[in-house]
Amino acid sequence: MAQAAIPPDSVQAMYLPELPQVSFELPFKETMHLTLEQMTKAVGPVLTDLQPALQAHQDDLTKPQGALGRLEEVAVQLGLIQGQLKLNTKKKRIYCFAADHGVAVEGVSAFPAEVTEQMVLNMLGGGAAINQICGATGTELKVVDIGVKAQLPDHDELIKEKVRLGTGNFKVEPAMSVEECEQALSVGFRLAEQAAAEGVSILGTGEMGIANTTTASALFAAYLPCDPSLVVGRGTGVDPAGIDKKAKVIHEGLACHQAALADPFKTLAALGGLEISGLAGLMLGAAAKKICVVVDGFISSAAALAAIKIKPEVQDYLVFSHLSAEQGHQVFAKLYGVRPLLDLGLRLGEGTGAALAMAVIESAACCHNQMATFSGASISQKIAGA
Amino acid sequence: MAQAAIPPDSVQAMYLPELPQVSFELPFKETMHLTLEQMTKAVGPVLTDLQPALQAHQDDLTKPQGALGRLEEVAVQLGLIQGQLKLNTKKKRIYCFAADHGVAVEGVSAFPAEVTEQMVLNMLGGGAAINQICGATGTELKVVDIGVKAQLPDHDELIKEKVRLGTGNFKVEPAMSVEECEQALSVGFRLAEQAAAEGVSILGTGEMGIANTTTASALFAAYLPCDPSLVVGRGTGVDPAGIDKKAKVIHEGLACHQAALADPFKTLAALGGLEISGLAGLMLGAAAKKICVVVDGFISSAAALAAIKIKPEVQDYLVFSHLSAEQGHQVFAKLYGVRPLLDLGLRLGEGTGAALAMAVIESAACCHNQMATFSGASISQKIAGA
Repeated sequence: MAQAAIPPDSVQAMYLPELPQVSFELPFKETMHLTLEQMTKAVGPVLTDLQPALQAHQDDLTKPQGALGRLEEVAVQLGLIQGQLKLNTKKKRIYCFAADHGVAVEGVSAFPAEVTEQMVLNMLGGGAAINQICGATGTELKVVDIGVKAQLPDHDELIKEKVRLGTGNFKVEPAMSVEECEQALSVGFRLAEQAAAEGVSILGTGEMGIANTTTASALFAAYLPCDPSLVVGRGTGVDPAGIDKKAKVIHEGLACHQAALADPFKTLAALGGLEISGLAGLMLGAAAKKICVVVDGFISSAAALAAIKIKPEVQDYLVFSHLSAEQGHQVFAKLYGVRPLLDLGLRLGEGTGAALAMAVIESAACCHNQMATFSGASISQKIAGA
Repeated sequence: MAQAAIPPDSVQAMYLPELPQVSFELPFKETMHLTLEQMTKAVGPVLTDLQPALQAHQDDLTKPQGALGRLEEVAVQLGLIQGQLKLNTKKKRIYCFAADHGVAVEGVSAFPAEVTEQMVLNMLGGGAAINQICGATGTELKVVDIGVKAQLPDHDELIKEKVRLGTGNFKVEPAMSVEECEQALSVGFRLAEQAAAEGVSILGTGEMGIANTTTASALFAAYLPCDPSLVVGRGTGVDPAGIDKKAKVIHEGLACHQAALADPFKTLAALGGLEISGLAGLMLGAAAKKICVVVDGFISSAAALAAIKIKPEVQDYLVFSHLSAEQGHQVFAKLYGVRPLLDLGLRLGEGTGAALAMAVIESAACCHNQMATFSGASISQKIAGA
């Protein structure tokens, strides 16, 4: 893949995140897109230096050690990501990426393709589930048109970064070119950078795209790898025959793109989708900026897996919010040792699970930051051996 | 059990909840305590008339049917409890009941008994985990001294309703008399009534009491019934020998109170604790006032089981917040078909799980109340059979 010409200063800024973010002097849309190499090189693992201090602080809080369970784990992870003992969850934002999928023509969804556009408009109008849960949990919502097959109106909450008008049908053709896929990754990466510049302390993922459970299942089948039948499910509500159809379409798609499957990035380009690529880019960008990403459900996990396959260190920055009712999610979670925080039978996407988990993560951070300590309070220490 | 003399008007108010709550003209402490019969008679089952309308509304929201999983169930339950299609979660309050346990002298806890008092002071000072999670989830916190073995200071957030200075050691004597147990139930019942009068729309339970996992385990063993070894666990952090000791103490306690075990109320009096009785009373009172109660973890579930054994209809009003890391909680959940919303490995009590679940319930209610509907919006209806 050709590396686009990019001013040396901007490249340097990627490697040295402490430099001023000059790129944001320009209107966002006019920034040149980043290359895959630039994006992956900007990501390093979480530094573990603070682990003992973070754990010691948790153990000093006025509670039995470990009694806050997963909240303690999340707090320590957040401290490692942020590289500080005091956790920051002040500004939480979910980017909901929307795009259409060429594979929808195969009849793999219970809803017609135009629902992608309609649901984007519903989100902009404040009527979707994600609007309510973001409202209830104090999370900002931004909708990103990265490939909806329709011209959307201007709106304050809509970020227009359309890479193309929906993907190609991966059963018979590449979902997108590698250049388009790189551009979609770059859109997500840049949005994470922008969020960092705007003081966002924790990011969440969301998506909307009719037929995207089929695309996500194809990615899981390709990446894990496994037989498609193990990772297809009901999606928005197809019947058993519909599930079989999804598996068959994926089988044919994987056969069609056999040559691409050796490379995780080319796999993503071949299968799609645009919103999944944007989310993978968001995760890379967040990792580059040392920001925690709360991963929503099935589709977002496919994006996470793509990002991890492209750059394994990304996983350090991810908190998996919920176990989707989509059966393939459990297969992925088991294989990757991922333990989502919540299990509420959600299968909606949009970022609803991520928004719900924000409340748990904020609670974990508040406990970490604000609880009294044994060393500071006059609470009796545990009696050894009692 | 003798029924205390009580003005006929007050009794009538119990049976006819629509009457003005004249009892609250008096300072709270001076109200006479209610009898068990008065409390149980005030509770009826949830009316199911609204079930079809609530479900039809959920199915009309702009999402695939069932895609919000447990959130949809909770929303419908809340609607049935409140008897209305529009859900109310505006004012959320947790009552954290604190009391000491005579059985602590058996060395069943990893912490000394004086920690009950210290942790109450910590809560009043804002330093406990529950303070932070209530803060993060917009939940009000009230601490109730229903039996701490210490004189606590006056404080705006502390409700002083001490029934006695801790329970007796149930291994060798009754935890309390039936009169004391009735009084403790009445304290909780009255607090639920007061919350209703103050416009609280959803209640949560919390507790603090060193050694109370032993008391709760004894109640589970007596009520389920089962062998104590199946429902004892680590509590605040005892080792395997400590767990065995807990089981042995419970065995002896149950043998000591064999005669009481045929009656659920007498069982509660015999085993304790004061805070568990207060919580059971709170649940009865909330049910009488058609208020949903979010049940915290292991101890609160023992209180819930006591309330259910005393008045089965109470269960309609309960939402179980989280599955405790305490093994006995799973035994109870399985036997009673209870599916807690969260599973975060918490084993702290205080109401921490209930406070976390408040965010889920509030999100469920916001989705129910505020999402656009298919019938109102121009979102394509699901294509049948696609």
